[in-house]
Amino acid sequence: MDTHPLLHLYSSAAQKAQPSTIRDLCALVARPEIRSLAGGWPDPEVFPGAELSAIFETLMRERRREMFQYGSTEGVLELRQLIAEQLMDTTNLFSPDNLLITQGSAQGMSLACQVFLDPGDIVLVGLPTYFGGSGAVAARGGECLGVPLDGQGLDTLALDKKVVALKSRGRKVKGVYTIPTFQNPAGVSLSLERRQHLLELAAEHDLVIFEDDPYRDLRYEGEDLPSLLALDHESRVIHLRSLSKIFSPGMRLGWAAGHPGAIRKMAVAKQFADVTSTTPSQYMLLEFIKQGLLRERIETNRDFYRQKRNFMLEQLEKNFPQEVSWNRPRGGFFIFVHLPETWDAADLLREAVDRKVAFVTGQPFFVDGGGQNTLRLSFSQAGREEIEAAVKALGALTRDRLAAGF
Amino acid sequence: MDTHPLLHLYSSAAQKAQPSTIRDLCALVARPEIRSLAGGWPDPEVFPGAELSAIFETLMRERRREMFQYGSTEGVLELRQLIAEQLMDTTNLFSPDNLLITQGSAQGMSLACQVFLDPGDIVLVGLPTYFGGSGAVAARGGECLGVPLDGQGLDTLALDKKVVALKSRGRKVKGVYTIPTFQNPAGVSLSLERRQHLLELAAEHDLVIFEDDPYRDLRYEGEDLPSLLALDHESRVIHLRSLSKIFSPGMRLGWAAGHPGAIRKMAVAKQFADVTSTTPSQYMLLEFIKQGLLRERIETNRDFYRQKRNFMLEQLEKNFPQEVSWNRPRGGFFIFVHLPETWDAADLLREAVDRKVAFVTGQPFFVDGGGQNTLRLSFSQAGREEIEAAVKALGALTRDRLAAGF
Repeated sequence: MDTHPLLHLYSSAAQKAQPSTIRDLCALVARPEIRSLAGGWPDPEVFPGAELSAIFETLMRERRREMFQYGSTEGVLELRQLIAEQLMDTTNLFSPDNLLITQGSAQGMSLACQVFLDPGDIVLVGLPTYFGGSGAVAARGGECLGVPLDGQGLDTLALDKKVVALKSRGRKVKGVYTIPTFQNPAGVSLSLERRQHLLELAAEHDLVIFEDDPYRDLRYEGEDLPSLLALDHESRVIHLRSLSKIFSPGMRLGWAAGHPGAIRKMAVAKQFADVTSTTPSQYMLLEFIKQGLLRERIETNRDFYRQKRNFMLEQLEKNFPQEVSWNRPRGGFFIFVHLPETWDAADLLREAVDRKVAFVTGQPFFVDGGGQNTLRLSFSQAGREEIEAAVKALGALTRDRLAAGF
Repeated sequence: MDTHPLLHLYSSAAQKAQPSTIRDLCALVARPEIRSLAGGWPDPEVFPGAELSAIFETLMRERRREMFQYGSTEGVLELRQLIAEQLMDTTNLFSPDNLLITQGSAQGMSLACQVFLDPGDIVLVGLPTYFGGSGAVAARGGECLGVPLDGQGLDTLALDKKVVALKSRGRKVKGVYTIPTFQNPAGVSLSLERRQHLLELAAEHDLVIFEDDPYRDLRYEGEDLPSLLALDHESRVIHLRSLSKIFSPGMRLGWAAGHPGAIRKMAVAKQFADVTSTTPSQYMLLEFIKQGLLRERIETNRDFYRQKRNFMLEQLEKNFPQEVSWNRPRGGFFIFVHLPETWDAADLLREAVDRKVAFVTGQPFFVDGGGQNTLRLSFSQAGREEIEAAVKALGALTRDRLAAGF
């Protein structure tokens, strides 16, 4: 593949571009005999199949001409109105002009990077952080640098110091990319105090905040925290949402919310990125919300994934040795595991695959190359038996290694 | 909208980015009282509604778990196999590794630009050419420069001279963007001789060819010409296709074909652009092709649009004065009109809208700002009565202007 005679004509970004290690890894371990806790995909058990069949029929009667036609780049107006009214935690953004329908939140981040990043601009991220966000920054020629996370999310004091240090060296720090709620991969949420502090720092250092918020509807305990967007008084936040975890990932639906000026610029970028989001998906979602089914579905999914989280936590308690630690996420899809400090999770993964079990190593989530002794377990996609067997096998594997003196 | 307090943080590309004049114009003239020949959208009359209802039901029974889930970034494997076997005019590309499913051909162009263009790189285009292609180049920081078109398509002798002149001034010419078959907006096709010459020039000057080929299945007369891809022996062509004109634009389906190395790099760019193309759209198309319905649909659409073309040509003959000239396209959606040289089509458009008729001026298709006296008429979307009334009104308007001494 790398023998393309035109390699010398590739852009510098393409020459440097690295595939998503994790998408490639997940493809690799998608063999049926592997019990995988690797992928962060939702469970098809809770896809709204029956409802969508009925909705498709209704649409074929009522919206046949629009539903297969091109639509506006901004997205179906009625859908944006409903989202603004029903799915935002701030009433500051009551207008459809504040919203752009995107092909999942990934496209939202890609378009936001196009609007805000010049090559060489720096975006700060958590260590660890979702590679999709840092990958979108890199695709635009930007650079991600890391700031530690702890149990309260991104360490904002460390962020402050990092920005000052970088600016004193003449670097252009443009923004912060963060998943403040049930972060991928660490499962933590940014505390309210830190949310406020982050916004103060953004004002002080003149930064944009890319708030990636795909898991906020999947809270299993505790009270909702306001989004950064809801706390923002300076239009510094581009808020990115996804329907992938509460409706269907294959439909590729999400939205970006923010200042209408930035949203308009993102729409212009979208005109040349893919013209318009998939129209049947938008109309199916519109009907789904209108019929009150999305609210129901969110409740169903919360209960469903809460049980899976609880089950995996029980299994970890039961099977993992005390030398291994992990967190108790209050929502989302992920549990983050710390192995003994000298271990390399990549070695463990090789041994695990021999025992027909897979997970994702933590290192690809660390833009500084750290996190060798960490790994991510997802409870979203695997069934109960798969979770039980996989955690048991991983527990036995870690105990064996400890017994062997690792 | 332009008062966003973060304007100073916008990227230089976003600060320069211009919305698609034509998408905005089409939105403006979408009022029900306007008879519009402006938009190049397909006619919903030939959307495969009934077939898709049946297919959706079948899929809900047979593919329910996959159809709403994330899919691979490259696209559904079976679909790529069928496309490689049935929809390509070259057997050199028999492998799914040569194909990437995209969100319409627009995304194909956007990803190809990411792989091949660095800021400042030059891409040569026809005068006139589709603004979506030149917009994608600009979004990447590249620059489009124009070469004249004539009845045989892009003037390749002029292209040769232009490349030599640019290179002698130290400019980096990276490629050529072309719609060789039934070009938008001019309706012309690149002759076989010129196709071969273009490939020779690409080899001589070390260029990539972005071949945008959304209309090739809609030929109304004459024999098929080989795609540039089929004539290419150096892997210089990235071939972009669309299902929008023969299946459904709202489904957002297209594909890119080319050397597996470039296709792989485009897939990596897509991982961070939108992760995966819409899954239900892909499965619906897969079933549609498997059942032999796409072949049928292409025949239906050819007959349908041929009649519309013929009808518009008749109306033009009947109503337009001899001072106005136009071409007879052998396929596609567009007829390109030349007004008397001193006229400005923008003035004519204002007067036409007063008479409740709309078209698209030619100028936005000329990257050099020329083409003031040209306009594009589309026969794809308007109904028979709309075409008749609009052409009649435009004919009367041009005659009035001539009588008034313009």
